[in-house]
Amino acid sequence: MVKAQSDELAEDFKKLFYHALTTEQSYQWLRSLCKDVGPRMAGSPGDRKAVEWSVALMKKLGFDTVYTLPVDVRHWERGRESAIVRLGGKKIQLNVTALGGSVSTGKRPLRAEVVEVRDFDHLKELGERVHGKIVFYNYRMRKDYISTGAGYGDAVKYRWSGAVEASKYGAVAVLIRSVTTRADDYTHTGVMTYEGAEVKIPAGALSYLAADQLEQILRQHQNVLMDLTLESFDRGRTTSYNVIGEMYGTERPNEVLIAGGHLDSWDPGEGAHDDGAGVVHSIAAAAYLRQLGIPTRHTVRVVLFANEEFGLDGAKQYAEWVKNNDTKTIRLAVESDGGGLSPRGFTLDAPDSIVQKVRSYREFFYPYGMYEMGKGGSGADVNQLKSTGAVLAGLRVDGHRYFDLHHTSRDVFEEVNPRELEMGSAAMAAFLLLFDQLIF
Amino acid sequence: MVKAQSDELAEDFKKLFYHALTTEQSYQWLRSLCKDVGPRMAGSPGDRKAVEWSVALMKKLGFDTVYTLPVDVRHWERGRESAIVRLGGKKIQLNVTALGGSVSTGKRPLRAEVVEVRDFDHLKELGERVHGKIVFYNYRMRKDYISTGAGYGDAVKYRWSGAVEASKYGAVAVLIRSVTTRADDYTHTGVMTYEGAEVKIPAGALSYLAADQLEQILRQHQNVLMDLTLESFDRGRTTSYNVIGEMYGTERPNEVLIAGGHLDSWDPGEGAHDDGAGVVHSIAAAAYLRQLGIPTRHTVRVVLFANEEFGLDGAKQYAEWVKNNDTKTIRLAVESDGGGLSPRGFTLDAPDSIVQKVRSYREFFYPYGMYEMGKGGSGADVNQLKSTGAVLAGLRVDGHRYFDLHHTSRDVFEEVNPRELEMGSAAMAAFLLLFDQLIF
Repeated sequence: MVKAQSDELAEDFKKLFYHALTTEQSYQWLRSLCKDVGPRMAGSPGDRKAVEWSVALMKKLGFDTVYTLPVDVRHWERGRESAIVRLGGKKIQLNVTALGGSVSTGKRPLRAEVVEVRDFDHLKELGERVHGKIVFYNYRMRKDYISTGAGYGDAVKYRWSGAVEASKYGAVAVLIRSVTTRADDYTHTGVMTYEGAEVKIPAGALSYLAADQLEQILRQHQNVLMDLTLESFDRGRTTSYNVIGEMYGTERPNEVLIAGGHLDSWDPGEGAHDDGAGVVHSIAAAAYLRQLGIPTRHTVRVVLFANEEFGLDGAKQYAEWVKNNDTKTIRLAVESDGGGLSPRGFTLDAPDSIVQKVRSYREFFYPYGMYEMGKGGSGADVNQLKSTGAVLAGLRVDGHRYFDLHHTSRDVFEEVNPRELEMGSAAMAAFLLLFDQLIF
Repeated sequence: MVKAQSDELAEDFKKLFYHALTTEQSYQWLRSLCKDVGPRMAGSPGDRKAVEWSVALMKKLGFDTVYTLPVDVRHWERGRESAIVRLGGKKIQLNVTALGGSVSTGKRPLRAEVVEVRDFDHLKELGERVHGKIVFYNYRMRKDYISTGAGYGDAVKYRWSGAVEASKYGAVAVLIRSVTTRADDYTHTGVMTYEGAEVKIPAGALSYLAADQLEQILRQHQNVLMDLTLESFDRGRTTSYNVIGEMYGTERPNEVLIAGGHLDSWDPGEGAHDDGAGVVHSIAAAAYLRQLGIPTRHTVRVVLFANEEFGLDGAKQYAEWVKNNDTKTIRLAVESDGGGLSPRGFTLDAPDSIVQKVRSYREFFYPYGMYEMGKGGSGADVNQLKSTGAVLAGLRVDGHRYFDLHHTSRDVFEEVNPRELEMGSAAMAAFLLLFDQLIF
């Protein structure tokens, strides 16, 4: 690297962080996305509003082009939810929420005995003894992983395929312990599957404290009956949109650096951290560079993916579009989908030679508290672009708080710290700039 | 370093973090300190309760010795507070709090015209024109410092000596803009001085939004009058205590590694981050090592300093005690006073040779997200031990959120994340162990 080039990059990094922290534009955009748009589950009115909102914002910010690509998505809606344990004459209400995609119990509760299982092995052991019963997966997300993402990865299998496994033995419904380490009364929803199931049974998540309470009840009583209502509505397929904005490059406008996040969110909160933060991080990455008059040689493309939460429809269909219709070549795609928390660095899904090259510049990020720069995963959405051969990457943030909020009614704007959010926006811009100037 | 030694240390680190994250004892202790004891301003009933609480806790945890050392402290109390702008017939109420140590306006409000100054230079320029008026230091804590501590250091001079400077020109009171970058309605108190002042005038802090509002009013109106009530009571000198617990070393029991924080807190909140976190970090550092059966060659001494907030009385008198009475030699003193936030590493106030040696082991901390290990400050309390020649050090945590809460009613237990807090406890223990095993 030429010294002058390196000095210039360091100077541009400084400008980006200064600009982010002093103008706090991402924070204002996020406030609007959370408060003016609100929750935006794929196919819902909020989702349509979010598409319009992001098109309008990027146009206002002077993107060289803004366009949408239709995405066929599934539209599922939550109805009434309740879990009541009947103990003699007493009724004990437990906080519960339906998992995304769950079939409905209907309006009237399903009444059955609850049986606790520790894990899939235990389920297998019990076998037909769960027939006609509600299976309660009392699996705790492990606290000892330093990376909360790893703990999530370990525990989420009961959410994802708990219904399929229990239905094999004739269970009539499943409940999981919310996937979180935080002992509170929030319920954590999230997507589930019926793939491989002959019978579809309703599936819900109890809050951590409700799961504790149920565990206690089951220790002390036999044949515990529950009235479980998990109402839901399958609205079939509908159309949503990937929203794309581009700032054209000066030298290689047909080579593209993507910054992306997903526009949809779960319904109970505002999708502030998941993934409103990624949406504004990505928009800011392009907008801040332009506002500062820092030209990029390559085109910067912001991609706001439709329906990540409910099966990655947006990302999958975007990858198809790229293969068949994109006139440009994608060189890099970096995703932000870990929340608007304090950034720690980036992980790269790329050949070793690229990882080594990027690592050689990692000290540029040290003044901003970002020390992690190595091989690793990217993100669920940009990972769909793997066959393009582009470098894939993911913003890594401090995740200790993330699963307190994830997929709950607590994932709201007020839980976002402006400095932490803006550090992420500047980090995304800086990362793009590094690739634009020195890697490609 | 022998390979076996290094493997053992890495294994012990793993055990410490596992133990902290899974048992969450620090978090439970902090809940008790915040909820059973509460605010604990030096000399107050809460302060006395905190001394008893910490003695009892360390005894319960099996410390080899627990003792207290009397500290002469100043006891100041807050009374009624209000700031009302009178605009024609309208009264506009602004959120205000007295700075610690401020003289009282008395029960009846002080009425005077408000004059805004940007900074000390501007004050000098205005000179006698502030005579008889309330000086409003409208200095914003800078947002562009990546380290919020640096931004605090820059802005806090108006809190500390604003009254002294303004009184030189005959001002009758001063108000500062709360020292925070967060645009909300919390007031941030903190200590101030009258050193060098001929006349002592009352001093308070407006919330960020109240300061914005006053700024607007002063743009639009001339001769703005305010009724300012900052009632306070100087209760004179009283006795508090430094609380000390020791776990004796196996090989060099007369050489001491100190972990410390301060036991006192400001009155509006619960002192959860400032510095309840440091209290439980320090206790945990010793207790977790003992619980895991990891012996230390040196004695681990926990020091909970009295009255940090109101002039470092505890630390100063402790340093005197060490000089005159301590039968042991202090080798290391590490402080936690940055809050129970996600740890980033440690800074060292030590000779280069020691810093280099510690840095050579820094990769032991990488798996836990701590990359910062270099020369820097330690902490206000342990810094008083400088003349002992001990290595001084400070735990560094992610500070982006810290000044949202600092010295406000929002500094409560609910604002602490258990994982972030426990990571800090394990980090403190690991740092002591590194020195115990490989540095000394």
